[in-house]
Amino acid sequence: MNSTPQSTAEPAPPYNVFAKACPSRGTLEHVTGRWGGLTLGALYEGSLRFNELRRRVDGVSEKMLSQTLHALERDGLVHREAQPTNPPRVDYELTPLGREVAERLLALIDCVESRMDEILAARERYDSARGAR
Amino acid sequence: MNSTPQSTAEPAPPYNVFAKACPSRGTLEHVTGRWGGLTLGALYEGSLRFNELRRRVDGVSEKMLSQTLHALERDGLVHREAQPTNPPRVDYELTPLGREVAERLLALIDCVESRMDEILAARERYDSARGAR
Repeated sequence: MNSTPQSTAEPAPPYNVFAKACPSRGTLEHVTGRWGGLTLGALYEGSLRFNELRRRVDGVSEKMLSQTLHALERDGLVHREAQPTNPPRVDYELTPLGREVAERLLALIDCVESRMDEILAARERYDSARGAR
Repeated sequence: MNSTPQSTAEPAPPYNVFAKACPSRGTLEHVTGRWGGLTLGALYEGSLRFNELRRRVDGVSEKMLSQTLHALERDGLVHREAQPTNPPRVDYELTPLGREVAERLLALIDCVESRMDEILAARERYDSARGAR
């Protein structure tokens, strides 16, 4: 009805990572998991082939990178493009949604990297307060 | 990240999460691990006791929360304060550094939660394109 006042406030999103059963928790884990975060970060620079990605994400196995890419593709964050070339060539790139998520993730990575001296100093204090074990 | 535009005067930080042996990768994993991220997010609201935290981080076991808190405390992100009360009471709160990290993490969580409808739609498209298995 035209006369009904509409709330100007946005409704709170119905998703909540703190709730065990919320699907957003699974996506957060894909995005921030051991390899998911590094994969999104690497693709933020531009599209990469599988083996290029594997070199960039130092330490990842072929199997884990493949699983990681499937989960990110399924969540709509990564686009997989098979080129009809010989030999066949597959490129991976971020979707627009994936870029938005990756931007937030890279801000977090920058923060951690830039504060690493403080973090390492805290570790030393923590370990020495507890003595050599 | 090396690619982040740096002030011309500032040297690039020597830490790089993409390098397997860099200690920043371990901290990123503490911060973004299954329970680390939710713990930092919960403590952003204010200090909490162990059992309050455990209720807030739905699904975490006592053992995992304890390990998570130790790793975050060792990295200087969480402060543990034992009160001389009877019964003894232990409060956990973010350090200033922990708040900086948590702010970036919460921006990422907000992004994921607010785009979850799109993410779930992408999952449906992905699954239906591959047919029922």
